[in-house]
Amino acid sequence: PPRRIMQTVTLIPGDGIGPEISAAVVKIFDAAKAPVQWEERNVTAIKGPGGKWMIPADAKESMDRSKIGLKGPLKTPIAAGHPSMNLLLRKTFDLYANVRPCVSIEGYRTPYTDVDLVTIRENTEGEYSGIEHVIVDGVVQSIKLITEDASRRIAEYAFEYARNNQRSSVTAVHKANIMRMSDGLFLRKCREVAENFKDVKFTEMYLDTVCLNMVQDPTQFDVLVMPNLYGDILSDLCAGLIGGLGVTPSGNIGANGVAIFESVHGTAPDIAGLDLANPTALLLSGVMMLRHMGLHQYAAKIQTACFDTIKEKKVLTKDLGGNSKCSEFTTEICRRVQDLA
Amino acid sequence: PPRRIMQTVTLIPGDGIGPEISAAVVKIFDAAKAPVQWEERNVTAIKGPGGKWMIPADAKESMDRSKIGLKGPLKTPIAAGHPSMNLLLRKTFDLYANVRPCVSIEGYRTPYTDVDLVTIRENTEGEYSGIEHVIVDGVVQSIKLITEDASRRIAEYAFEYARNNQRSSVTAVHKANIMRMSDGLFLRKCREVAENFKDVKFTEMYLDTVCLNMVQDPTQFDVLVMPNLYGDILSDLCAGLIGGLGVTPSGNIGANGVAIFESVHGTAPDIAGLDLANPTALLLSGVMMLRHMGLHQYAAKIQTACFDTIKEKKVLTKDLGGNSKCSEFTTEICRRVQDLA
Ligand SMILES: CC(C)[C@H](C(=O)O)[C@@H](O)C(=O)O
Ligand SMILES: CC(C)[C@H](C(=O)O)[C@@H](O)C(=O)O
Repeated sequence: PPRRIMQTVTLIPGDGIGPEISAAVVKIFDAAKAPVQWEERNVTAIKGPGGKWMIPADAKESMDRSKIGLKGPLKTPIAAGHPSMNLLLRKTFDLYANVRPCVSIEGYRTPYTDVDLVTIRENTEGEYSGIEHVIVDGVVQSIKLITEDASRRIAEYAFEYARNNQRSSVTAVHKANIMRMSDGLFLRKCREVAENFKDVKFTEMYLDTVCLNMVQDPTQFDVLVMPNLYGDILSDLCAGLIGGLGVTPSGNIGANGVAIFESVHGTAPDIAGLDLANPTALLLSGVMMLRHMGLHQYAAKIQTACFDTIKEKKVLTKDLGGNSKCSEFTTEICRRVQDLA
Repeated sequence: PPRRIMQTVTLIPGDGIGPEISAAVVKIFDAAKAPVQWEERNVTAIKGPGGKWMIPADAKESMDRSKIGLKGPLKTPIAAGHPSMNLLLRKTFDLYANVRPCVSIEGYRTPYTDVDLVTIRENTEGEYSGIEHVIVDGVVQSIKLITEDASRRIAEYAFEYARNNQRSSVTAVHKANIMRMSDGLFLRKCREVAENFKDVKFTEMYLDTVCLNMVQDPTQFDVLVMPNLYGDILSDLCAGLIGGLGVTPSGNIGANGVAIFESVHGTAPDIAGLDLANPTALLLSGVMMLRHMGLHQYAAKIQTACFDTIKEKKVLTKDLGGNSKCSEFTTEICRRVQDLA
């Protein structure tokens, strides 16, 4: 067989069930002979000079070199003033686009079928600016920051994503009827960018209307692009339509190919270490990662093996409706991956 | 029969299909002999002294006297600077609580059954402050304003609503992990008020988690209370679960008994005047209104007649899956109301 050029990926196993599901993904990648060299790193935040929270130097250094990360769930620190690790990672590497494909999984029953959409969330500003003030006692303001540059950048990402993934439409989600200037700016940038992508249909819709229409018929949507908070909401809503965070992959994309792919479910401390966790979300995030790296064949093989396993319903973890252990589910996917070779 | 004391209600028929569905409601109220005296008013906004937009004096005067309004859909004005009529009405009468019961309707199929929840939305501040600035070229900020008074007021409303309507729990919906000060203040007030309502269970949940859980199993929710924008989103989402805005009632409640009940669907100009509209949302808003006025028997009768008509599936408007005209649907409900007398 031809010598494969290994690409380095920074693996952040995370907390709780993170190590188990990461080990499962590594196994399945091995079975697929995916040319990936893992570099494992811990990202527990540390206090740097001047009291600034930062991720450990060796994790930063690894990501700076590899440019690609795969990350399990991280527990939310409870120390006062401690930032969410997810937010810190997005910030550290300027991961401006959060991408979540939501596709119905055959064999995993939810009230919906044929969901096939992608939410693209602006990941750096908006309601997440962190700027808040007490004006007078009992009166607080939070600032939502929208910039032309970030709005254009995310709009361009969305249209390029649509074009490169054979998707036919992009919907900008907004409340420019209420936030006329901020969402207005976001929307204007989407409209301008749309002009350069005449092959992709562009529509606009109020966030409330999107939510209403989404639960009535999600199949009407394709690619959706939106400011930060709306993306936080809508990406979780859409994950719910196809079965929840346990089966939904996610990617955080920055400039120059930098990206971290992650499962967005929690650390599930109650079942951690018991070999009961479902690695699907992290595995499918890994599949997104392989595509991002141009390793499409490996991505397809692993995805097929995973979906076939779920469709067959013989070896499933508890949350998927079965009785199997994480390791058994993993072995079954490995077996199918090898059969596909 | 005892002489009924008539109570005055300001009727705002609205635009598009508004007049037809209002006429339907008036007919059904008549059939039920509901002791309501309608005072019809137009609320097209006018420019007052100093260029301030306001609702016409005779509409304001009627509402000030009657304290109770029932309102059809209003078209969104397109004139520059013209405010949304809905927002203007909420503001003019300080209608601080938007209440939307979402209950599954037997016979009207959606992907969900047994939905039975109520969203209670703070209606006066938050992201709807209307305060926005350009900081420098290409950088805009919108201000989300949260006050102690408005947060306490809406929390108290929610808990009192739960207690008075035999509901067992209130969930505060927030993003205090991101907007620590503003949503933090809102949440703190909810917690404080919860202390005075030990008979009602109190829980807190992130907005994204609520959306995720809502589409997976809405039956886990009861009363939900939240800031303005989250309510805008979640109330539409929940309406979608039970069949959309065509069947979802809504009430805007102020202090001292002042309230406007309204259907929140659009004006449907394409079918206006064709006797095809579905009056259910406005009718059920009228039922909420009757309860608000203490006219429970009339409310129950009309609600039963409406739900029975839908359940029987013989006389339904198009959007409900039938072939009947608005007038036929209305006549059928009237017939049943009279049978119940
Ligand atoms: C963990 C939390 C800060 C985060 C967010 O609000 O963005 C999460 O909900 C997400 O979607 O990644
Ligand atoms: C019409 C619009 C301004 C309004 C809102 O955003 O509040 C509507 O969506 C609603 O829910 O009543």
